[in-house]
Amino acid sequence: MTYTLILLRHGQSDWNEKNLFTGWVDVSLTEKGRAEATRGGELITDAGLRPDVLHTSLLKRAIVTANLALESADLNWIPVKRNWRLNERHYGALQGKDKAETLAEFGEEKFMEWRRSYDTPPPALDDASEFSQADDPRYADLGDDAPRTECLKDVLERMLPYWESDIQPDLASGKTVLVAAHGNSLRALVKHLDGISDEDIASLNIPTGIPLVYELDEDFAPLNPGGKYLDPDAAADAIKAVANQGR
Amino acid sequence: MTYTLILLRHGQSDWNEKNLFTGWVDVSLTEKGRAEATRGGELITDAGLRPDVLHTSLLKRAIVTANLALESADLNWIPVKRNWRLNERHYGALQGKDKAETLAEFGEEKFMEWRRSYDTPPPALDDASEFSQADDPRYADLGDDAPRTECLKDVLERMLPYWESDIQPDLASGKTVLVAAHGNSLRALVKHLDGISDEDIASLNIPTGIPLVYELDEDFAPLNPGGKYLDPDAAADAIKAVANQGR
Repeated sequence: MTYTLILLRHGQSDWNEKNLFTGWVDVSLTEKGRAEATRGGELITDAGLRPDVLHTSLLKRAIVTANLALESADLNWIPVKRNWRLNERHYGALQGKDKAETLAEFGEEKFMEWRRSYDTPPPALDDASEFSQADDPRYADLGDDAPRTECLKDVLERMLPYWESDIQPDLASGKTVLVAAHGNSLRALVKHLDGISDEDIASLNIPTGIPLVYELDEDFAPLNPGGKYLDPDAAADAIKAVANQGR
Repeated sequence: MTYTLILLRHGQSDWNEKNLFTGWVDVSLTEKGRAEATRGGELITDAGLRPDVLHTSLLKRAIVTANLALESADLNWIPVKRNWRLNERHYGALQGKDKAETLAEFGEEKFMEWRRSYDTPPPALDDASEFSQADDPRYADLGDDAPRTECLKDVLERMLPYWESDIQPDLASGKTVLVAAHGNSLRALVKHLDGISDEDIASLNIPTGIPLVYELDEDFAPLNPGGKYLDPDAAADAIKAVANQGR
């Protein structure tokens, strides 16, 4: 028996477009992002895949991406579970700032360290900040688990319990699982699945809106390491564009 | 302790507009229906209500109505459960037919009986019909429970177990519950809540897209019998328009 897992990163958001650190700030999709989501659903249909269950974060850019993808795949009705453990990385004090602001406030070295290193989180976000989620009712049950900042290692450590408790059992029951989430929660999952090192994960990027399909064995190990993008040419172009951003 | 229950009938669908019997056929919302859904979410927000959990049918016109209402209320993230027991009444052999076709095929007397009577279902829909759901994967688990036709009594009898098993416990835990469903599944629920007779339910109509709010006591009996529409003027106009259709 092999299991099918489909990962979908949300389409472009308002703050992707403005180049702001978003993290847990609950921004909307742009029109481009909505179109990407619809196209994601078409790619799933065209590949002959039929998700049986959906898992999303608690952030609307992932939820609406999933809604639109399922609408175009005519699968609105499949069950859905939402969990904060699939949220984007909490960007701490960087949330709401753009690159220039961050560089001016913290300097180039810190900036690169927070973006690239696996285990160094930015400074914690003040609960009084307009970009804090400290009083957000959707996280009221988290108590001390609610992060004020995260590095990728933190994301992996809070994502894995949900992978094991909720996603693995769906896969093990033979369901095709769709996970609609974020750049960093999906990078954390891919790091785990493919056994990517703490160093190598820094250069791995997942494009928006292009479903990434893993076939897994009964121990949840990939039969196709790295997965397969349903539009490989568009994925390669998007990955190249991100790599060139740093130059 | 009082409980808050919000009922929302889906906005206009393609087949409402064409005046076809829809039932379990999974038709989309019209643009007008989508706008009604968005407005429904605004009415919920304006009333100071915040649903904690959503229940929908397995039909996209209810699911997308809920998605759009939650999007405009900025509550995309609340948990959702979908169940076939909240589906529209299965209209049997009438599914896909318009009024003129139905009258020509079955005659005026039968037509009125199926529309108005509480306990007379239309003839069963043939599994070979293009409008049948016999092979629809979303109902694969139902087995012999899968209806081929229903009267309102049938709807009430298959809806009540879900009301008791899934919606009542959410209310009892203090959650504000939003139910996004259909004309007849909501009429069945309202009949149960308000203790409406089998005769009187025939003349009760629930308008599309206008949230209907019940305050319930700890035995789930309405403190405000009949509920309260969040836009009472629009609801009264819509109810009057439906009543006049028969003339």
